[in-house]
Amino acid sequence: MNKQAAVAAVKRLGGPDPRTDQDLVAVESLLTVTVSHPHETATRSLGVLMRTPGDDDVLVLGLLHAEGVIRGMGDVASVEPHAVLNESGETGDAVHVALVSSVDVGVLPGERPLVTTSACGLCGRLSVRALDRRGTAADATRFSVDMLASLQKQLRSGQAVFAETGGLHAAALFSPAGERMAIAEDVGRHNAVDKVVGALLRDGRLPATGGVLVVSGRVAFEIVQKAAMAGASALVAVGAPSSLAIDAARTAGLTLVGFARDGCFNVYAGADRIIS
Amino acid sequence: MNKQAAVAAVKRLGGPDPRTDQDLVAVESLLTVTVSHPHETATRSLGVLMRTPGDDDVLVLGLLHAEGVIRGMGDVASVEPHAVLNESGETGDAVHVALVSSVDVGVLPGERPLVTTSACGLCGRLSVRALDRRGTAADATRFSVDMLASLQKQLRSGQAVFAETGGLHAAALFSPAGERMAIAEDVGRHNAVDKVVGALLRDGRLPATGGVLVVSGRVAFEIVQKAAMAGASALVAVGAPSSLAIDAARTAGLTLVGFARDGCFNVYAGADRIIS
Repeated sequence: MNKQAAVAAVKRLGGPDPRTDQDLVAVESLLTVTVSHPHETATRSLGVLMRTPGDDDVLVLGLLHAEGVIRGMGDVASVEPHAVLNESGETGDAVHVALVSSVDVGVLPGERPLVTTSACGLCGRLSVRALDRRGTAADATRFSVDMLASLQKQLRSGQAVFAETGGLHAAALFSPAGERMAIAEDVGRHNAVDKVVGALLRDGRLPATGGVLVVSGRVAFEIVQKAAMAGASALVAVGAPSSLAIDAARTAGLTLVGFARDGCFNVYAGADRIIS
Repeated sequence: MNKQAAVAAVKRLGGPDPRTDQDLVAVESLLTVTVSHPHETATRSLGVLMRTPGDDDVLVLGLLHAEGVIRGMGDVASVEPHAVLNESGETGDAVHVALVSSVDVGVLPGERPLVTTSACGLCGRLSVRALDRRGTAADATRFSVDMLASLQKQLRSGQAVFAETGGLHAAALFSPAGERMAIAEDVGRHNAVDKVVGALLRDGRLPATGGVLVVSGRVAFEIVQKAAMAGASALVAVGAPSSLAIDAARTAGLTLVGFARDGCFNVYAGADRIIS
């Protein structure tokens, strides 16, 4: 157990053995995000995220990347987790990112645009633009059926906190050969993806060309967008895709796999990249 | 099949019988939301939602309720679905809500605050305030173990499109006796809840005192908040709760049930309201 899981008192009812017990639950808590730029005197607050603690620095880096604010660590002077006092006088978590002067101030989100929830990161605020940043440029990467069929099990085996709580989404990036390069868990599915992309960004590994982003849940438009923004070549979901996720994957030239379970999977886009 | 599901070409791989096939997938598409107020000359755009088509009017009503903009149909002069031309010149869906003059203009969200995704409705923008609107006022409602144990099955039996696509979240409101009062499906879990609350609001049935909100997935803070804003007395989730969801339910005096599956469930808050 760690700060990603907490103990909660629980009553287990309905079964043959009703009882009072303890449960481990996934932690969800607030993270305040601020950004500064050399051309601005004041620090900007980008609002508050609800997330599972851990990897806060890469979460914020991934979020700023998904928002189009930063493209790499060359845009970041520093990223510093720190403590803040919240409105009720309690200590809370925060991350401050200092940008370098070459970052266009115009791409910064406005002051306190929103309070976000664990469901959405900064909420696809810029969702409908820029899907084809990555473009449909020729991508020679090919994936084997066996490798793709193995990913759900590999993702699950890396989910330490999910096994304890049943309450976390997971995301991971794998190489075309099926090697795991980054993994994250969070109560927010978008946060999990942002943490993975942020870790790659921190390590200078973006764009993740040839990479396979794997997510534990369903896949709607914004997850496809985040995969495309990261430059991944394939997106594999344990759950179902939405219609717009399929359309977006086809537009972005991304291979899209859904219902990846027990060694079987469905391919909704980019099947020509999969070799048996 | 209806406009909530669409046909997608799919390749089924990894199993003993790889083949090209067709799949039904949940539809996710854009909905533009605008609001007008008698004291303002211009119409405000509240941005774009990604949602599953259907019940667009109640979705927007529920969203405006969750955002604290409206409290009942007395605040609404009209709510009108209509067609718009989107940026690429295609026809898209929109809903316009005309407010009455007694609504405080100050509660209106700013112009185009965000583009939202199917994951988040208008994204808990106001999340961290107003949790105890509903308060912990004495709520004499009691729930039986048998009734609570039956809800997951009842929710699932009402999920027409999920059965086809596997891709939709569901939410429903039940009376204390277990009678279903409203149900909705959407690719966005928050949208499903907003649709249910919006339908109750349209029918003059808010606050939903004594009601049980049931959701198909996990439950994080913002779902608890929406349940509390609707005045429900209990929240039942098929999946796991987060730590903050539990804290918020206790603060709001809401009975919180998680892992409601196969007749068994866990009670994380308000167990004293449950009678065997």
